Amino acid sequence: MDERVQMSMFLDLYGELLTTKQKDIMELYFNDDLSLSEISEINLTSRQAIYDIIKRCHKLLMDYDAKLDLLEKERASSELKKNIEIKLDNLKKEITMDKKIEIIEEIKLKIRDI
Amino acid sequence: MDERVQMSMFLDLYGELLTTKQKDIMELYFNDDLSLSEISEINLTSRQAIYDIIKRCHKLLMDYDAKLDLLEKERASSELKKNIEIKLDNLKKEITMDKKIEIIEEIKLKIRDI
Repeated sequence: MDERVQMSMFLDLYGELLTTKQKDIMELYFNDDLSLSEISEINLTSRQAIYDIIKRCHKLLMDYDAKLDLLEKERASSELKKNIEIKLDNLKKEITMDKKIEIIEEIKLKIRDI
Repeated sequence: MDERVQMSMFLDLYGELLTTKQKDIMELYFNDDLSLSEISEINLTSRQAIYDIIKRCHKLLMDYDAKLDLLEKERASSELKKNIEIKLDNLKKEITMDKKIEIIEEIKLKIRDI
């Protein structure tokens, strides 16, 4: 996965664990695509200070994901949901009653894994 | 919710964000129901030191949940899943085709909220 996309997702999942200032800077860099110089001007601080904050928060977000694994859990859940939707669409097309019951039971098992 | 039950759930959700030592002590206290004195003996430290760690980690876990809200998300997801299962059971009992399609569409919408 592209680093920018990954960091953007991590900010959605774990951004609240950063301070407001850290989160703002990370969002300006990874979501709004501003340069270090532009962010340093907004924050009235040096380019180096912004670089240090981004580097530190990058590590913090990577660590949070290594520990909580929410991105992978969301990905797996999303795949299951798509799979269930396909099964429901198949169910619509089915005509024999026996087959329908089988599909419904399969869906119920899948939902438990969400 | 009982504090012990709540802390036990928080430990499942956020325990990885604590250090191994902190997590071990919290589990001995909230999951295994050991006393402060018993935990201090196991850790070869004072009762006061254990009390301070538990107090600090209690606050940390409360803060993590205030920020990430995973317990409420799990509760809501679990409720949705139960609701979907009931709908699937109703579907099994339905006999007219039109009614079935309606229930399937309702389920598909619900799955998106999981």
